[in-house]
Amino acid sequence: MDYRQAGVDVDAGNEVVRRIRSLARGTHTPGVLSEIGSFGGLFRINAAGIDDPVLVASADGVGTKLRVAFITGQHGSIGRDLVNHCVNDILVQGAEPLFFLDYLATGRLDTDVAVQIVEGLAAACRENGCALLGGETAEMPGFYADGEYDVAGFIVGAVARARLIDGKRIEPGDTLIGIPSSGLHTNGYSLARRIAFDEAGLQHESRVEELGTSVGEALLVPHRSYLPLVRPLLGTGRITGMAHITGGGITDNLPRMLPPGLHAEVDRRAWKVPSIFRWLQRTGGVSDADMLRTFNMGIGLIIACRPGDGPGILAALADAGEAAGSSIGRIGAGGEGVRYVGH
Amino acid sequence: MDYRQAGVDVDAGNEVVRRIRSLARGTHTPGVLSEIGSFGGLFRINAAGIDDPVLVASADGVGTKLRVAFITGQHGSIGRDLVNHCVNDILVQGAEPLFFLDYLATGRLDTDVAVQIVEGLAAACRENGCALLGGETAEMPGFYADGEYDVAGFIVGAVARARLIDGKRIEPGDTLIGIPSSGLHTNGYSLARRIAFDEAGLQHESRVEELGTSVGEALLVPHRSYLPLVRPLLGTGRITGMAHITGGGITDNLPRMLPPGLHAEVDRRAWKVPSIFRWLQRTGGVSDADMLRTFNMGIGLIIACRPGDGPGILAALADAGEAAGSSIGRIGAGGEGVRYVGH
Repeated sequence: MDYRQAGVDVDAGNEVVRRIRSLARGTHTPGVLSEIGSFGGLFRINAAGIDDPVLVASADGVGTKLRVAFITGQHGSIGRDLVNHCVNDILVQGAEPLFFLDYLATGRLDTDVAVQIVEGLAAACRENGCALLGGETAEMPGFYADGEYDVAGFIVGAVARARLIDGKRIEPGDTLIGIPSSGLHTNGYSLARRIAFDEAGLQHESRVEELGTSVGEALLVPHRSYLPLVRPLLGTGRITGMAHITGGGITDNLPRMLPPGLHAEVDRRAWKVPSIFRWLQRTGGVSDADMLRTFNMGIGLIIACRPGDGPGILAALADAGEAAGSSIGRIGAGGEGVRYVGH
Repeated sequence: MDYRQAGVDVDAGNEVVRRIRSLARGTHTPGVLSEIGSFGGLFRINAAGIDDPVLVASADGVGTKLRVAFITGQHGSIGRDLVNHCVNDILVQGAEPLFFLDYLATGRLDTDVAVQIVEGLAAACRENGCALLGGETAEMPGFYADGEYDVAGFIVGAVARARLIDGKRIEPGDTLIGIPSSGLHTNGYSLARRIAFDEAGLQHESRVEELGTSVGEALLVPHRSYLPLVRPLLGTGRITGMAHITGGGITDNLPRMLPPGLHAEVDRRAWKVPSIFRWLQRTGGVSDADMLRTFNMGIGLIIACRPGDGPGILAALADAGEAAGSSIGRIGAGGEGVRYVGH
């Protein structure tokens, strides 16, 4: 008996590693000292030229959005979901990404699928100026069904200690600026899939007129990166806090940036909820409160700032390519959490 | 319909996060600036006091050793496997760990199992002086069978650039010192499980006289950390290269540290192969070459050094608690890979 008979194909693994190495090389930045294949990836922190650097790290997955990739057979956007999700998670503390590592686990390694995923990872890393420094590709017979896999991402970025954004400067009266999401991003998929495929009984290729596309395509729209929009604002001191709306909705994410003794007031009339959320709510008969707890509802990032800085920040966002940012509320004294108005 | 009906228990997730936060706090080192619950974990690199720091990062899983945890119901050692594996992967380049993040994915979150796993992670982080800085706990209905999960670890360490160990100083005649493994560590489990449970038809609790224990216990022995043994040698300049024997055997791992144009000669008479490997080979009818390609065969870490430094390194290892290190071979000019002698 050998390892291949036990379900592990070392040669296929080596082929994937060779192709990944070449893709990763295309993402390397001046700080990178090693190639994938060394035991650890090497990054010289001084190359980033940051004064008293604080490393900001995050680990994330794509969740059951993966199942939409499985049923559509489209794996090219999963890497972008994962990288952009991680980039946003550290961006809200003021950090720009330095490097990224992935963990890809399958039952039986399909070289083409693995390469599709890593091509997406590498493309998103390049777009974000982030080195794909390494990763692990695990073949685990019997752990994952045929054609299925799980993938996790790990990002490290850095910010000068003096430029760290931690929400401590947020005060009553601060304006909340919402920036549009590109879709569901990477959360709420267990519920969304159940509504679309079980309740409504649709196939992924079923066209939904209200969405202007097939339900599979609408659910597979990649998580966007807010780095290109927010980068010009980092270090200006105008952002007092930032929240990435992910792993849940505004209800649970916005309070993560608030100092104790403050609450956020969010005006639901301030932005138009995209059709995918309205369609899911109506089709699934989901309450307003559950929608706001589960989905981003069209707002993927929220910036807090002094009221006087709001117009300048909106102008900077427009200059960077996003004209649809808008004031969606304010910070109030006392209490905690989010209070919704306008509904 | 709400999220819980769709198979995701947000409250159970929040309870796990609360318990993880408390466990993580116990691992925090002076560099840590944040608690779990911020979007990203924060680590002030200057707190490590390293001159021109090179960050060394690695991502790893535990592989199908997890299935041994599933069948025995013992999840406490999985965290130690994961952390120690990662610590060793960056140690071989001279780095000491700064922080660790985990990704834990399940079908339906079992709070007690998740806490057992994270207790193991936190204990191992403390032992290695590594902060558990964050992580992601994902509930993915339908992705994992009941009672099953996957877990990945991400580590970042640092080494002064001048102290980086990259194998470039290795030269012909260098001695290879082998340090014992504690068992299979975290590789070869697909083959080992097939031999033990399918071929031999054993239950995990079946006692195997030759192993002096049950087969489940023998397979579940945690991956050891080499950091306490090797730390006194870091920065002495006496280590010319190091290889962590993982994700395969000596055959594929030892060459990862070699500069081009050199090969390693390994004398198989130089150490006694532990009984677990001999039993697996005999029971499964596995060839010598496949054993050496798949399993660590009793050697978990290999250090290269000048011949004159060998005795001092062995003495330092003994002082640090490991008297069973030994010279297992040498570096030779020309060729590549590993040449086994003594068999």
